[in-house]
Amino acid sequence: VRANEFELIEEIFAPLAAGKDGTFDLTNDAALLPALQGERLIASVDTLIEGVHFLAGTAPEAVAAKALRVNLSDIAAMGGRPLAYLLALSLPRGQGRDWSAKFARGLSAEQARFGIYLLGGDTTATPGPLTISITLFATLQGEASLTRSGAGAGDLVYLSGSLGDAALGLTVARGGLSALSEAARHALQSRYECPEPRLALGQALLQGGLATAAMDVSDGLAQDLGHIARHSGLGARIERACLPLSAAAKAALAGDLRLWPQLLSGGDDYELLFTVQPSRAPEIEALSRDLGLPLSRIGCMEAGSGVQVFGPDGQPMALDRAGWSHF
Amino acid sequence: VRANEFELIEEIFAPLAAGKDGTFDLTNDAALLPALQGERLIASVDTLIEGVHFLAGTAPEAVAAKALRVNLSDIAAMGGRPLAYLLALSLPRGQGRDWSAKFARGLSAEQARFGIYLLGGDTTATPGPLTISITLFATLQGEASLTRSGAGAGDLVYLSGSLGDAALGLTVARGGLSALSEAARHALQSRYECPEPRLALGQALLQGGLATAAMDVSDGLAQDLGHIARHSGLGARIERACLPLSAAAKAALAGDLRLWPQLLSGGDDYELLFTVQPSRAPEIEALSRDLGLPLSRIGCMEAGSGVQVFGPDGQPMALDRAGWSHF
Repeated sequence: VRANEFELIEEIFAPLAAGKDGTFDLTNDAALLPALQGERLIASVDTLIEGVHFLAGTAPEAVAAKALRVNLSDIAAMGGRPLAYLLALSLPRGQGRDWSAKFARGLSAEQARFGIYLLGGDTTATPGPLTISITLFATLQGEASLTRSGAGAGDLVYLSGSLGDAALGLTVARGGLSALSEAARHALQSRYECPEPRLALGQALLQGGLATAAMDVSDGLAQDLGHIARHSGLGARIERACLPLSAAAKAALAGDLRLWPQLLSGGDDYELLFTVQPSRAPEIEALSRDLGLPLSRIGCMEAGSGVQVFGPDGQPMALDRAGWSHF
Repeated sequence: VRANEFELIEEIFAPLAAGKDGTFDLTNDAALLPALQGERLIASVDTLIEGVHFLAGTAPEAVAAKALRVNLSDIAAMGGRPLAYLLALSLPRGQGRDWSAKFARGLSAEQARFGIYLLGGDTTATPGPLTISITLFATLQGEASLTRSGAGAGDLVYLSGSLGDAALGLTVARGGLSALSEAARHALQSRYECPEPRLALGQALLQGGLATAAMDVSDGLAQDLGHIARHSGLGARIERACLPLSAAAKAALAGDLRLWPQLLSGGDDYELLFTVQPSRAPEIEALSRDLGLPLSRIGCMEAGSGVQVFGPDGQPMALDRAGWSHF
């Protein structure tokens, strides 16, 4: 069904903005952001393109979830509390009302889960692939910020959750790793399709002044830790034996050790990577218990530059691919 | 030249954010918006796609100007003062460093002109056409807002500048209207390629409490006035003889009267369309003189619904195309 832009907005997207001040029911040229009392406002934008950031044919509800969660992960890395978002949707011709209705259903479920609402947006047709840019707004409490540049030599490097599941999940989604159990394949693919933004962790790191630097892992552990190292004027070392692996990832590795580089350089995990002064390590352990989320010490920052991964034999591994680069 | 995403950001885009608090030199996951004292923050997002919103092969500097100005026009329609923007850039593979450097040069010139800066963004590669989504932030003074829903029956309808130049300019850019003079063709094409956001007008309308409703004309006069009419629960009538035409548009019409529907329904003028109580008409005349910008009374709001255009003979014209629709 070919839909008129204004019908799409009024019938399908306006309900996502209903009852919220400043949205003008999506009938206005611009949206009004809420006034804040003693909090700061942050904004993050991310673009997802069909065939690049998600597979062609992914269910619209799943696309909606991933588009929001990728942004929510950026907010988590800053310690923010999500507030609202702007949606810039470029729809291929013919992908009109039905797709949009399902996509909006997905957005609605995520809105309820994360306590956010649609503030405004722009909808247009494209001769190219489905393209979604979301600008997410969030609040920061206090005066401090989590950045990538504050790590010090000797700081410990931590990673939340488990590593590499999303990269393996993409392989599964493309029909690979067929020797794994159905449960393992499903677990990995879910991690690729529906990342879990580590919002509570980011907020706790910020409020507690626990992290000296933080970011989310979206371009691969090696490359992303490289950003923290470079912006902090340091090097970093990772102990491969300390990397947290899910049961499914362990099963995959047991079948093919050549998957290691993929784990280290694959993107899309959206776990938080952060550095901590050694004296604060007990607080990280306590936080891990409080959140019910593994926070694994995977290495440390040191003088120098670059990221090295050391194998169980104490020898540095060759990284044949530094990370996911978009060009 | 194929460029790495991080090199592009660091070398080409980071200078657009340099020296500004909250941008973190584009090294962070999210940007921090400036704290406001007694002002409100508004945000508008617009997407431009090569081949849809600008012609393939348009100079990168001109694409930059149009991408920002389309957004600035939305801000103008709200009476806002532009502040900063987020850039989501999806580049076709191969359109890397050289294109981006010129595009950034264009952004830089617009930043200087409008007093804005790059707050953050996302850069990715696309298998589709060049796609640019910009989220523009602006401030509103006072407590009032310009919206589309406040027009009253009997209010006068005004339009800034001149009508239809952009639609004719697109025809020129595609090689049409070849009988016009070189100067006229150039004037029309410039209006299509580089709209002038009516920021000072919007701010004056808001501060003076002069407009009961306002929006910018991006989808064609007839359709856009239809939005004000519908959201205000009214109808609108336009007197064709009152429509402001540039010398170039008059010359084009003199050659072909069948261009009228194109003028009424063509998009991309980015003039402000607004309604005013009749008692305030003298203030609009004074404002027009102050700004050095024609503000033409083109019709009025009335009970009923829909938009009718009356010709010099007093008969309603048939609008064969209600306006530019993206689907």
